[in-house]
Amino acid sequence: MRPDELKDLLSGLLEGSVTLDEVVGELRRLPFHDLGFARVDTHRELRQGMPEAIYAEHKTPDQVIGIAQTLLDRTSSAVIATRVPEATAQWLLDRWPEARHDADARLVVLRSAPDDGAPLGTIAVVSGGTSDRPVAQEAALTAEAMGIKVERVEDVGIAGLHRVLAQEEVLRTADVVIVVAGMEGALPSLVGGLTPAPVIAVPTSVGYGASFGGLAALLAMLSSCAAGVVVTNIDNGFGAAMAALRQLNRAPR
Amino acid sequence: MRPDELKDLLSGLLEGSVTLDEVVGELRRLPFHDLGFARVDTHRELRQGMPEAIYAEHKTPDQVIGIAQTLLDRTSSAVIATRVPEATAQWLLDRWPEARHDADARLVVLRSAPDDGAPLGTIAVVSGGTSDRPVAQEAALTAEAMGIKVERVEDVGIAGLHRVLAQEEVLRTADVVIVVAGMEGALPSLVGGLTPAPVIAVPTSVGYGASFGGLAALLAMLSSCAAGVVVTNIDNGFGAAMAALRQLNRAPR
Amino acid sequence: MRPDELKDLLSGLLEGSVTLDEVVGELRRLPFHDLGFARVDTHRELRQGMPEAIYAEHKTPDQVIGIAQTLLDRTSSAVIATRVPEATAQWLLDRWPEARHDADARLVVLRSAPDDGAPLGTIAVVSGGTSDRPVAQEAALTAEAMGIKVERVEDVGIAGLHRVLAQEEVLRTADVVIVVAGMEGALPSLVGGLTPAPVIAVPTSVGYGASFGGLAALLAMLSSCAAGVVVTNIDNGFGAAMAALRQLNRAPR
Amino acid sequence: MRPDELKDLLSGLLEGSVTLDEVVGELRRLPFHDLGFARVDTHRELRQGMPEAIYAEHKTPDQVIGIAQTLLDRTSSAVIATRVPEATAQWLLDRWPEARHDADARLVVLRSAPDDGAPLGTIAVVSGGTSDRPVAQEAALTAEAMGIKVERVEDVGIAGLHRVLAQEEVLRTADVVIVVAGMEGALPSLVGGLTPAPVIAVPTSVGYGASFGGLAALLAMLSSCAAGVVVTNIDNGFGAAMAALRQLNRAPR
Amino acid sequence: MRPDELKDLLSGLLEGSVTLDEVVGELRRLPFHDLGFARVDTHRELRQGMPEAIYAEHKTPDQVIGIAQTLLDRTSSAVIATRVPEATAQWLLDRWPEARHDADARLVVLRSAPDDGAPLGTIAVVSGGTSDRPVAQEAALTAEAMGIKVERVEDVGIAGLHRVLAQEEVLRTADVVIVVAGMEGALPSLVGGLTPAPVIAVPTSVGYGASFGGLAALLAMLSSCAAGVVVTNIDNGFGAAMAALRQLNRAPR
Amino acid sequence: MRPDELKDLLSGLLEGSVTLDEVVGELRRLPFHDLGFARVDTHRELRQGMPEAIYAEHKTPDQVIGIAQTLLDRTSSAVIATRVPEATAQWLLDRWPEARHDADARLVVLRSAPDDGAPLGTIAVVSGGTSDRPVAQEAALTAEAMGIKVERVEDVGIAGLHRVLAQEEVLRTADVVIVVAGMEGALPSLVGGLTPAPVIAVPTSVGYGASFGGLAALLAMLSSCAAGVVVTNIDNGFGAAMAALRQLNRAPR
Amino acid sequence: MRPDELKDLLSGLLEGSVTLDEVVGELRRLPFHDLGFARVDTHRELRQGMPEAIYAEHKTPDQVIGIAQTLLDRTSSAVIATRVPEATAQWLLDRWPEARHDADARLVVLRSAPDDGAPLGTIAVVSGGTSDRPVAQEAALTAEAMGIKVERVEDVGIAGLHRVLAQEEVLRTADVVIVVAGMEGALPSLVGGLTPAPVIAVPTSVGYGASFGGLAALLAMLSSCAAGVVVTNIDNGFGAAMAALRQLNRAPR
Amino acid sequence: MRPDELKDLLSGLLEGSVTLDEVVGELRRLPFHDLGFARVDTHRELRQGMPEAIYAEHKTPDQVIGIAQTLLDRTSSAVIATRVPEATAQWLLDRWPEARHDADARLVVLRSAPDDGAPLGTIAVVSGGTSDRPVAQEAALTAEAMGIKVERVEDVGIAGLHRVLAQEEVLRTADVVIVVAGMEGALPSLVGGLTPAPVIAVPTSVGYGASFGGLAALLAMLSSCAAGVVVTNIDNGFGAAMAALRQLNRAPR
Repeated sequence: MRPDELKDLLSGLLEGSVTLDEVVGELRRLPFHDLGFARVDTHRELRQGMPEAIYAEHKTPDQVIGIAQTLLDRTSSAVIATRVPEATAQWLLDRWPEARHDADARLVVLRSAPDDGAPLGTIAVVSGGTSDRPVAQEAALTAEAMGIKVERVEDVGIAGLHRVLAQEEVLRTADVVIVVAGMEGALPSLVGGLTPAPVIAVPTSVGYGASFGGLAALLAMLSSCAAGVVVTNIDNGFGAAMAALRQLNRAPR
Repeated sequence: MRPDELKDLLSGLLEGSVTLDEVVGELRRLPFHDLGFARVDTHRELRQGMPEAIYAEHKTPDQVIGIAQTLLDRTSSAVIATRVPEATAQWLLDRWPEARHDADARLVVLRSAPDDGAPLGTIAVVSGGTSDRPVAQEAALTAEAMGIKVERVEDVGIAGLHRVLAQEEVLRTADVVIVVAGMEGALPSLVGGLTPAPVIAVPTSVGYGASFGGLAALLAMLSSCAAGVVVTNIDNGFGAAMAALRQLNRAPR
Repeated sequence: MRPDELKDLLSGLLEGSVTLDEVVGELRRLPFHDLGFARVDTHRELRQGMPEAIYAEHKTPDQVIGIAQTLLDRTSSAVIATRVPEATAQWLLDRWPEARHDADARLVVLRSAPDDGAPLGTIAVVSGGTSDRPVAQEAALTAEAMGIKVERVEDVGIAGLHRVLAQEEVLRTADVVIVVAGMEGALPSLVGGLTPAPVIAVPTSVGYGASFGGLAALLAMLSSCAAGVVVTNIDNGFGAAMAALRQLNRAPR
Repeated sequence: MRPDELKDLLSGLLEGSVTLDEVVGELRRLPFHDLGFARVDTHRELRQGMPEAIYAEHKTPDQVIGIAQTLLDRTSSAVIATRVPEATAQWLLDRWPEARHDADARLVVLRSAPDDGAPLGTIAVVSGGTSDRPVAQEAALTAEAMGIKVERVEDVGIAGLHRVLAQEEVLRTADVVIVVAGMEGALPSLVGGLTPAPVIAVPTSVGYGASFGGLAALLAMLSSCAAGVVVTNIDNGFGAAMAALRQLNRAPR
Repeated sequence: MRPDELKDLLSGLLEGSVTLDEVVGELRRLPFHDLGFARVDTHRELRQGMPEAIYAEHKTPDQVIGIAQTLLDRTSSAVIATRVPEATAQWLLDRWPEARHDADARLVVLRSAPDDGAPLGTIAVVSGGTSDRPVAQEAALTAEAMGIKVERVEDVGIAGLHRVLAQEEVLRTADVVIVVAGMEGALPSLVGGLTPAPVIAVPTSVGYGASFGGLAALLAMLSSCAAGVVVTNIDNGFGAAMAALRQLNRAPR
Repeated sequence: MRPDELKDLLSGLLEGSVTLDEVVGELRRLPFHDLGFARVDTHRELRQGMPEAIYAEHKTPDQVIGIAQTLLDRTSSAVIATRVPEATAQWLLDRWPEARHDADARLVVLRSAPDDGAPLGTIAVVSGGTSDRPVAQEAALTAEAMGIKVERVEDVGIAGLHRVLAQEEVLRTADVVIVVAGMEGALPSLVGGLTPAPVIAVPTSVGYGASFGGLAALLAMLSSCAAGVVVTNIDNGFGAAMAALRQLNRAPR
Repeated sequence: MRPDELKDLLSGLLEGSVTLDEVVGELRRLPFHDLGFARVDTHRELRQGMPEAIYAEHKTPDQVIGIAQTLLDRTSSAVIATRVPEATAQWLLDRWPEARHDADARLVVLRSAPDDGAPLGTIAVVSGGTSDRPVAQEAALTAEAMGIKVERVEDVGIAGLHRVLAQEEVLRTADVVIVVAGMEGALPSLVGGLTPAPVIAVPTSVGYGASFGGLAALLAMLSSCAAGVVVTNIDNGFGAAMAALRQLNRAPR
Repeated sequence: MRPDELKDLLSGLLEGSVTLDEVVGELRRLPFHDLGFARVDTHRELRQGMPEAIYAEHKTPDQVIGIAQTLLDRTSSAVIATRVPEATAQWLLDRWPEARHDADARLVVLRSAPDDGAPLGTIAVVSGGTSDRPVAQEAALTAEAMGIKVERVEDVGIAGLHRVLAQEEVLRTADVVIVVAGMEGALPSLVGGLTPAPVIAVPTSVGYGASFGGLAALLAMLSSCAAGVVVTNIDNGFGAAMAALRQLNRAPR
């Protein structure tokens, strides 16, 4: 129920076209999530800052297209699909040739956030090795689609320390630093010690044996001795970008 | 090596009191972390924003007191000790009677950040049940010691939904929301759907059986379907506060 | 041994055609499960209320058809096959064209419970996301085959709270609520707080990384802070329906 | 907001003492959980059927007493405290000498459900061994406090099959069967095959080595080949009783 | 070194063709496993009772054929290959058309133990469900190849108790009972309570979700409350048969 | 119901003092485990060969004494209590001064099997280190109480190979070999390669870190490359002795 | 910055073409890893002893070729690629026909260390079974490419003890012993007790069921009772060879 | 059998006092580990380089003293006891007042290796935090007792990078580097990238929550991207020192 609808109802009360009991009954029946005048604002803010993404992995191409069409029609914010199977990506590109597709990151950007000339902020996306690139790309491309400027810092594993240190200034000045690493997952601790910026650690499933599909990196990042490092799910580059978006939405440009 | 020391060295070169080879040799030997002119700035910024805390759990009272004395003497920022055993806390209070001690949170605040009248920002610390309070308090007291304003929202478990919803405005307007929950760890997903603010989830070891010391809550939070929720280690209220501090330090007041 | 057979034996004793030692010997040898007069009733009741389903996953099409034929011939209750591989489903449909097959749920209903006009009761099957639908369908279709009325409540994830709340009345009035959810598995806690009805939680293997094939959801549901929520195996929609059937069989219509 | 308050507000609108915009503003500000006219009914029903229990483990005696006093004062239903430490139990008994305390089950019943002469139903609480008794007692005493009649079937482990079989009739006729077992957790499968009644399996932490604190029993029960067996958390006798209560509340007496 | 070789050496000493120091040096260099006169007996006994089997899973067809040829040529005992991939099995059958192949059990019997008219003993191989049959067959066929008489008792899951009880005499009189079960792995506890015979429990990987590839059954069997039940690795029907063989080799026929 | 009772009943039928329907009714009501004439034989055999032991860990001294008294009174076989807390042991020794108590093994032997001059057989109990001795003793003393001759082979860890090899003959000639080992649990594989005798592996919780309370040894023993090695639960020396007893009971002396 | 560049800068200062502040500013901006005069030596030493290998698993053929070309061009040390997919190996062989490829070990040696006539030392690579050969080969071929002499000791599983003992001298005299084993992972403990040489244990993923992809072997090796045995990741033959290389680089030839 | 005993036996053969068959019989019966002439050398070498340590944790003071006395009497090498409970340490110090005891490391050195003026080599023992000191001390003191020179590098956690870098030369020049770290266990990767020396990583149980008693650090170290890093069990400082000893024994001084 939108505010104007509520006013209509109450006007009807004033005008005598509805009784007081009818108004009470109407309000009583309203599922509170449909009161509208309160939720709509919230929703608008949510949609502007945090558009809903399509998790394409277990959906048919038809389902993905249907949801995408709805989001394109009814919202004006960015529309992206994550973990898109190759075949689904082709369907999407056939339908929306202007969409951009990154096969490594399995991401399709159907519409980016409107570019008003001023990015929401600048984040660094740091990754430990070439094998971590798909997850780093998922984070970077998602962030860019949301209107965030991204500095990519790639292949700076902990065992080649100088490569990290060479990027110290980028790490120190970014609004948020996303650190993507597999294997022993040590990079976020190192970066967390080099920068006062917020650090979001993304463990990846890169590795074998005792890395147990990313578990080693995940546990290591959670146990980081660098204070204030926070962690996402394994391979969740998208989530890290959304966390960065939450932060940048709070800060005035 | 501080900039003035470097200038002295180079002045010696200009004056002829040291040779060019001696200068090269001197610079070559310098451990880079001691170049100073670069590291000092970094350190100052780090110290201002992110004071080093004392993890007291495996240390003797003497060790804790020694470190505390050093930090009190050589820095001007907040000094806190976390996971302080009861006995150690007594020693600290004997030595610094003005220190504040929260026995539940096992936290001792030896010196808060200087109060310049303007808090760094406002965060909400939400906790699911009375049993989660010690971890929530660790987060809240740490944040307050760092100069952050804290809104406490306690005992709003997911099974009593109306208690969460009653606090929706606090959740929506906070700069950062820290959500502390044990058992099934569902609260961050719920909060993440209600607010566009950054959400930091802290699993606690509250529970028994299949909660496996906080593992159930940890895995649930990492798997949250609310986009952009980030996670700390189990029971790491301190880490969540430091993550919030990293974020607030980025945003201009 | 049926009661009449026992009477025959004892009559033989009275008539002298068998000796007392022979009777003792005969009874001594009897496997007790064959005493019959006690077990048959149990079996009949069991079969009426809880028909045996065919778990088709590790069986050949021939084996499945053989068991199905036996159940169709010797019982009058519902006959269903679960986790049916695509190829096996085709064989079943070739043989019994009237059978109904749901490819997502991998379920084949060969015969439904006889429809006597009055359903056993009404259950709600609630699922968190589109990806959870196959498991929810397995639960719903199994229940319907058993003669239960099913209300489907789909795509009501915890991060979109209003969608759950909009269905509050359905949840409150159902005889049993089955809640199917993957990822963080928080939905049963939420539903458990909204309804006094029995809540059966079904974790699904939907998710990635730290969801560990449904483990996160399973542990979360077992650790639910909503009192009286019970849990099935991961992806066990069939089991949840059978648990509901057990409950409805107890309640007089 | 109660219905009469709403009516007052709307009457004020009709009488002109408040403006239309003031009414809209008032309704807009209302946290929906406080609309009252909808939630109160729900709460009343919840409280009647499912009284809130006090989880005493991590609470101080003062906290437990405070919550208990509130529940005794403001509700008329059963009031129980679970996992009560010995010391806290003493405090409770000092304050309310009429309370009943079971030290094994760590349960204190401060007030039972009012006895109106007709139990809600009859459940069987089956346990595998003497060591499982505390959990079985937690289930049984909780159920009795809620007004349920309980048949105790103790020490009927699977390796002594005849002891189970001797109780077959009790198992077959109960409204609900709660099966409490540790070690290999096989008893629910056995019972589930003997009775058409709803079976709630409660794994216990009894065992050593590969039982891993109840994990073996938990996994076994979740993997039960007896259709429709549902499971609670390890050692959660209370939860099983509440699940039974949810079921019995659905069935007309 | 065979006894005759040793005698030759010592004769050389007596004859003066080798010196005392040379004999000491020769013996000193001898790897003790090559002393022969001691090891040969052991080996013969080992080979007679416990022929080496070919674990074919990670081997090429050529490697399997090579080892098989060696065993056929140099020993007179049974020769079997386990976990034989389909393609390898075809190669083996092409080479040795008289070999017997069970595709379900993935077993190829190239030569059985010589049949001297008297089996080593009789064992029962009990399995819980149709899906457990391949593992049960691996146990049964291995045992038969070793000269053991096997009674198969199939599809006697715990939830259909009467089917187990009907076979009580077989279970009571067998020399060894091998119990093969997946899912909750309860069958060995049940059987262990019904028979005084040695019980070897074989967990299988049959199941899904919380059965975690056989882990649930494995832990349950290890935690069995039936005294004296022993366990093999998951799906290790071969190992159970060999354990039975070890036992029967001890008992005089 | 004992055979003579059954005969009495049937005689009554013959004599006319009870009717045929009364006999049928009586037999129908009999819990089959109470038929007696069938179960008693089984029980007698079970009791002779496999006396029930008292698992004392979670029982009060009173409970243990009560059960012990019953077993001493009503059976003539060995009576032992395992995992006996120190205090309970004192109570038992006060009551039965002739009982033997091994504090390390936490075992109390209240009555040994009657000594008829011929042991059931000879087993070897091999242990890897001094720290494994309590579990080895539990196995050895249990076996001795059952009338089995035990050869102890202690402190023969795999890293000191010669100590194992020195005992090769004992290992080769024992009827059963129980191998008790913690840490990496390699000893059973080594022994299994040295002897054709049945090998029962008992992992112990000795170790630290990655031994995870015996898990490392357990998994290693289950994965043993020595064919036919079977495994018990961690620290389950009692179970291993009972498994040996099952085997020896099968073999004629 | 190379020493000559630094000298140029300082000469400019002496000559007046740059000011003192400019020099300080230049040095201050230098990322320390680019100071060169310090890092280059380190790098040279690292490259000589420990050439960087290409982990090919998650890389495209193009990426692997690009990295390989760079290493071949800019270094003079060995160049190898590990975990090379079959297709990538073909591309590499097409480009560099002189490269050597081991399909089992998935290793491609593009250039071996220059052969100066004196190997760095001699290591033994011991493996437990045929199935462990690929990992053993990865270790052996890597070591050989680095200029180490390798003695292969294959198929010496712990259950066939004599095969190990026959190689005792090789084990005793090697500079380093690498022990590769799957299943129960006992071989390193055995070898560690036979040789005073450094022992590097490599668990493999060979096995099934409770070996959990190498976890059993890994935990066993970490828990080894042979003092001073160290462990690599599961299947990490390459890492073991590099650890040996680190050791041999320390020892003067 | 010592060489002289063998010579006596063979002389007897030459002299005719024993027959050829008697010699063969004697040799045949000899447990090969007692051949002596081969084993003794091995043992001597083993003892010189790798003295047996006393693992005191599960032993009584009497047992520890007994073993210590034997080692002091019969060997001339270092004698140490690890994981010594406080009470046992007191007993040892009472008996051998000259022994040295480190309470943190729980180590008692009863006799150091004889000091011949030249240490076996120099190792660095690096630890991440104050809490890791006990394990680092166990490593360092063990090494020193074995005659190794130790450089301690303490409190150089990864988040304070400059502290590690300041010690780069020590790390580069040590013969072996032992790296002791808990929490995320990242330090060995960092050190492994800084030094060409052998790196032995020791995970510690320091940490909480997701560090799971050292599991996080263990998995991280096993998954290290620094090539050639090897790992010991959690908290196994002793094992790391022994591994270093194995290496230094290989290298000529």
